[in-house]
Amino acid sequence: MSIVVVGSVGIDTIETPFGKEENVLGGSASYFSLAASNFTDVHVVSSVGNDFPSAYSELLYSRGVDTEGIEVGAGETFRWEGRYGYDMKDPETISVTLGVLGSFDPVVPGKHRDTKYLFLANTDPEIQMKVLDQINSPRIVACDTMNFWIENKPQRLKELLGRVNILIINDSEARQLSEESLVTKAAKKIMSMGPEFLIVKRGEHGALLFSQEDLFCAPSYLLEQVLDPTGAGDTFAGGFMGYVASQDKNLDFAGLKKGVAYGSVIASFTVEDFSVRRLGSLRKEEIKERYGQFLKLSAM
Amino acid sequence: MSIVVVGSVGIDTIETPFGKEENVLGGSASYFSLAASNFTDVHVVSSVGNDFPSAYSELLYSRGVDTEGIEVGAGETFRWEGRYGYDMKDPETISVTLGVLGSFDPVVPGKHRDTKYLFLANTDPEIQMKVLDQINSPRIVACDTMNFWIENKPQRLKELLGRVNILIINDSEARQLSEESLVTKAAKKIMSMGPEFLIVKRGEHGALLFSQEDLFCAPSYLLEQVLDPTGAGDTFAGGFMGYVASQDKNLDFAGLKKGVAYGSVIASFTVEDFSVRRLGSLRKEEIKERYGQFLKLSAM
Repeated sequence: MSIVVVGSVGIDTIETPFGKEENVLGGSASYFSLAASNFTDVHVVSSVGNDFPSAYSELLYSRGVDTEGIEVGAGETFRWEGRYGYDMKDPETISVTLGVLGSFDPVVPGKHRDTKYLFLANTDPEIQMKVLDQINSPRIVACDTMNFWIENKPQRLKELLGRVNILIINDSEARQLSEESLVTKAAKKIMSMGPEFLIVKRGEHGALLFSQEDLFCAPSYLLEQVLDPTGAGDTFAGGFMGYVASQDKNLDFAGLKKGVAYGSVIASFTVEDFSVRRLGSLRKEEIKERYGQFLKLSAM
Repeated sequence: MSIVVVGSVGIDTIETPFGKEENVLGGSASYFSLAASNFTDVHVVSSVGNDFPSAYSELLYSRGVDTEGIEVGAGETFRWEGRYGYDMKDPETISVTLGVLGSFDPVVPGKHRDTKYLFLANTDPEIQMKVLDQINSPRIVACDTMNFWIENKPQRLKELLGRVNILIINDSEARQLSEESLVTKAAKKIMSMGPEFLIVKRGEHGALLFSQEDLFCAPSYLLEQVLDPTGAGDTFAGGFMGYVASQDKNLDFAGLKKGVAYGSVIASFTVEDFSVRRLGSLRKEEIKERYGQFLKLSAM
């Protein structure tokens, strides 16, 4: 079954200790959809300006991503410039231009309103809810968020959390949202806000999948080269949702565990090169091979 | 087969956001031996002052730890006072008194010089080598170290590493020792210094076991209560070595993986209460039960 994703499509300039790339494809929905498209069809709902390079639309399209829901507005595309230090975490934002995303009023194309799988990438919870309102009867709704919305729109965010099945956030966000320092306590509190399942991303330390009864601890695939960590979390979400939607079954913990494993595997490719470059050339056999290695990593 | 461990036996005063305990049993060899004694006999080589409470010697003895090699010197016992913040990591040292450990000249009792399993807990690499020199033909030598020795005695430490089978350190120490930021690269470089196996402890994120050919990624058992993280790493090492020595086989990766799992499990008990309190009352059935839960954590 196909997935609808709402999120940003933008242009990044990224500096890491290993290089600098200017005006490359970025945005949460770009990473998500390129990851998920390895498993199923993906329809992107977003907005770009009339300066958005056609080569980037073509790249998405060439990987099977449906870009019809990306509205081209009069104005600039969302741009982000960031710099990573040697720890390759928490980049410093050098500049950010919201552009047309600043007045984004998302419209899900009519033919996709019956989608069963919806991912609300990190953005204003009011926009996330506007999209959710347009979907008739989704089977699985997953969302991301970030510290900015936890601080600035806590009520709207809680309203949203009451309506989603799966929340996918990183560990510092989980602590902030729950006001608990131990992740086990944080998870219980967050699940009491609505989501049946919680995925806590821990970067190089892997990810945790929680339900009320179960817990799965996934390692991170360990790389010998990390050039650019941008988009790893959105890629993870894309690999996860892509696998889950491709199975098109009721949510069960065993299936979600495999989704977490695929999310980790696809994310491990993303960070090997700048921007979406590695995702743009990823082959099914590469995913299969690394998935096998991934399973071996924590097998007793 | 029994284990000889050299390390500190001391008296701690520990403050965490959840309480303060004064003059409790501490020291790397205390935690190590109480953990390892769940699997096999442990002989401690250390030194305490004549102020060392007999109740602490009795506690060790009651758990099957041989304290004959703990020399009682004229002077004070090693004391450490530390305080943890809410992140429960990297305690601030409020005071430290070396006491008799300052002039410790370790002597392994003659009857233990044929031991096959030796653990050199974190201390001056010259002292670690003095102990190693007294062991006739050990089968497995494992050691720990810390940033202080990496900075201040790099040559002696490298000499030691050329003589051990297994190094057990935490991730920041691995990065510092190797001058590599990615743990995969760090591991290769460290193994080229001597150890056939490297274990990188990652606190709440578990542990990694490396050999030249293999890699195992162990989760951390996730707790709902952490009162005092002191000694978790030494406990891990004790559980690991205890299991490995109890098997008394040639080193194979599958056996070492089980050792890592047992180390993680025993360490998860330690942090549930202050000092060695939880280790002092730990029952075999509790270990067995949590080991089963641990295996489930990352099973696909």
